[in-house]
Amino acid sequence: MGPVSTSTAVPLTARSPEELTAFLAEQQAAHQALVAAGLTLDLTRGKPAAAQLDLAERLLSLPDGFRSRDGVDVRNYGGLEGIAELREMFAELLWVEPGQVVAGGSSSLVMMREVLVDLWLKGGVTSERPWSQEERVRFLCPVPGYDRHFTLLEWLGIEMVPVPSDEFGPDAEACAALVAEDPSIKGMWVVPTYANPTGSIVGDDVARRLASMPAAAPDFTILWDNAYAFHHLTEEEAASADILTLAAEAGNPHRPVMFASTSKITLAGAGVAFLAGSEEVVRWYLGHLGKGSIGPDKLNQLRHAQFFGSPAGVREHMARHREIIAPKFAEVLRVLDERLAGLGVASWTEPAGGYFISLDVLPGTAARVIELAKQAGVALTPAGSAFPYGQDPEDRNIRLAPTFPEPAEVTRATEVVATCALLAAAETLASGA
Amino acid sequence: MGPVSTSTAVPLTARSPEELTAFLAEQQAAHQALVAAGLTLDLTRGKPAAAQLDLAERLLSLPDGFRSRDGVDVRNYGGLEGIAELREMFAELLWVEPGQVVAGGSSSLVMMREVLVDLWLKGGVTSERPWSQEERVRFLCPVPGYDRHFTLLEWLGIEMVPVPSDEFGPDAEACAALVAEDPSIKGMWVVPTYANPTGSIVGDDVARRLASMPAAAPDFTILWDNAYAFHHLTEEEAASADILTLAAEAGNPHRPVMFASTSKITLAGAGVAFLAGSEEVVRWYLGHLGKGSIGPDKLNQLRHAQFFGSPAGVREHMARHREIIAPKFAEVLRVLDERLAGLGVASWTEPAGGYFISLDVLPGTAARVIELAKQAGVALTPAGSAFPYGQDPEDRNIRLAPTFPEPAEVTRATEVVATCALLAAAETLASGA
Repeated sequence: MGPVSTSTAVPLTARSPEELTAFLAEQQAAHQALVAAGLTLDLTRGKPAAAQLDLAERLLSLPDGFRSRDGVDVRNYGGLEGIAELREMFAELLWVEPGQVVAGGSSSLVMMREVLVDLWLKGGVTSERPWSQEERVRFLCPVPGYDRHFTLLEWLGIEMVPVPSDEFGPDAEACAALVAEDPSIKGMWVVPTYANPTGSIVGDDVARRLASMPAAAPDFTILWDNAYAFHHLTEEEAASADILTLAAEAGNPHRPVMFASTSKITLAGAGVAFLAGSEEVVRWYLGHLGKGSIGPDKLNQLRHAQFFGSPAGVREHMARHREIIAPKFAEVLRVLDERLAGLGVASWTEPAGGYFISLDVLPGTAARVIELAKQAGVALTPAGSAFPYGQDPEDRNIRLAPTFPEPAEVTRATEVVATCALLAAAETLASGA
Repeated sequence: MGPVSTSTAVPLTARSPEELTAFLAEQQAAHQALVAAGLTLDLTRGKPAAAQLDLAERLLSLPDGFRSRDGVDVRNYGGLEGIAELREMFAELLWVEPGQVVAGGSSSLVMMREVLVDLWLKGGVTSERPWSQEERVRFLCPVPGYDRHFTLLEWLGIEMVPVPSDEFGPDAEACAALVAEDPSIKGMWVVPTYANPTGSIVGDDVARRLASMPAAAPDFTILWDNAYAFHHLTEEEAASADILTLAAEAGNPHRPVMFASTSKITLAGAGVAFLAGSEEVVRWYLGHLGKGSIGPDKLNQLRHAQFFGSPAGVREHMARHREIIAPKFAEVLRVLDERLAGLGVASWTEPAGGYFISLDVLPGTAARVIELAKQAGVALTPAGSAFPYGQDPEDRNIRLAPTFPEPAEVTRATEVVATCALLAAAETLASGA
């Protein structure tokens, strides 16, 4: 069934109808062979592999004792803001003061939901009224982006306005123009470092512009989801823009709310999530949180503080993740390059960190590629997932998540994706569409 | 400073002005002596003592392995409803089917907030519209009750309607009359077993009436907070009314939403919380939860499943709690009886389980008693805490929480409370008020 050679790379669009017909037949045969092979592979979600979770094995026999550094019995109720030693550790990693950090439960997504619900029901630090009392509430969503961010907004009835992004993050000028004029635009999502799914890194210029741009809404809020802050794939480690300082310098100290977690550092289901913001934002968040919580799982926080030991311990731990997942990313890129380069029907990102590769296939074929892959036993994230309301206007984006499968599965799954991308492109081009 | 003898118990109200003046002077002297002693004692919150938390010591070195019974790697993402073995264990304990139970994070209060937010923003299984779109939303609140329940409602802007309760729980006829007529009454709180703070137990008759009473609101909801279901103080273990079956039999299967947790079974800050309801209610809850959560801390759930082993393991564990806390409750009751019985200025509950004793002092003096106790170094829950909006209409209720302090502290703190109750009563009666 082996891969069809594409070494003599003539763009498909430059081929004659006869050549295209022959190419289509080749890809159909290749696809049929893959279907017959009865594979079951999955590139859908950004889940750590078992080998990555094994790195945190020692966590399962911690904590030693049950007292925090301050002598608090972490087994009991209380301590809404989290234990001091873990807040300090992540304050240093996130470049903020300990008083600007809350250590919470196991999910930063839950914290994002809490923040959005609080904004909706009560309004934020600089709001004139609860967002639910506004006539219209809209959010800028850099695309492609993270499907769960969009799902949360849709659940709350917040309208989504897609904005383009490139390797330096969201198109800041486009954002600034919209935000300056329209008070219904209350916020935006940013995944600043190794974005989901493109791997883009928000540069200082973009961050400064987003932090300082005049906003018609006094409570314009940047939800800064730094989920992959320490998730480097190369030895050159990108530093996240210091959004809180930039916003404070620009006179908008309460604009950003930062999120981070150890879900992809220690254990995906049993890590610790963090929120950071101005001291007023932290007080605001804790004030609402305290209406319905007596405190987070401090025992798990102590476990994590002991496991890491220091901010350097976090960085060292991430280097071990890199050893496991960097080869998988390299393998995806090798196969894509070998199979698709020069054919003019696909382009893809080459991320320096994070959990995803963003693949753009021939416009109008992404849904078809995903369908063909499914037939061949390879599960991909549904078409349009990286766009608000699931609508990819060009039907061309596919998110590849190579961390979870075993290395051999990554190779095989990517070969399937490549074949399907070629087949779908050939179908479209051969039909003269 | 020893206790002032009240063995010759003549009710204060039956004493002459001269006798009252002398009694007042005695109590003032006793209180002064207590103030001079410089105590620091705390009867405010229902927190387990360190010795109770020690019972769960083995939990700190669990789990063994990281696979659930079904082979799921509990370290990774997913499994919104919780792991099967723990859901089954608590389904049996709560008398429901496993498919009717969700095992969540560490806090049932957080689950209550989620349910109320979902009802508010989206409406429930039987709602005509989201509660936020109703002109008025009200909740029945049996009093005295749990302050955090009331805080949650106030945060959401849900009006609270106090209803009386007695040793068999809420006054069901009063509830039925209100609920039948008024569609703005959307729900009620019930702590069915060993209620906070009275220790009352909802009997089958009351439960059946609440489950079956006609409601003007089609989505009338009972939030059934079974926080103390297994928290017996005597060998005779009260069984909670089977509210889900009763409601289903009455044709109102989606009316109750039950909550429980291991916060006061294993670790107050690091337990597992549960939600139970009809299968439709469970689907409804998970549907909204899934918009902002990838799953609970399943590792902690596996820890708990291994720690308990079986439903019987939970019950046996609770017997060990009883050995620690029953003597503290007995001591509070002994001191209250010795110091206050027969004087006609106080009454109190004698709970068979739970975490609290509810003390009613002379009407109009609860706030004063709490102030006097504070002067003597004993912290009590603020006056009115057990009532909506913090307003005890008779200013007479004080919640005593004896679990957390050491036994000797319980004795001393209760003596202070008794002295302060007598002093405040004497002040009031001697002034002829």
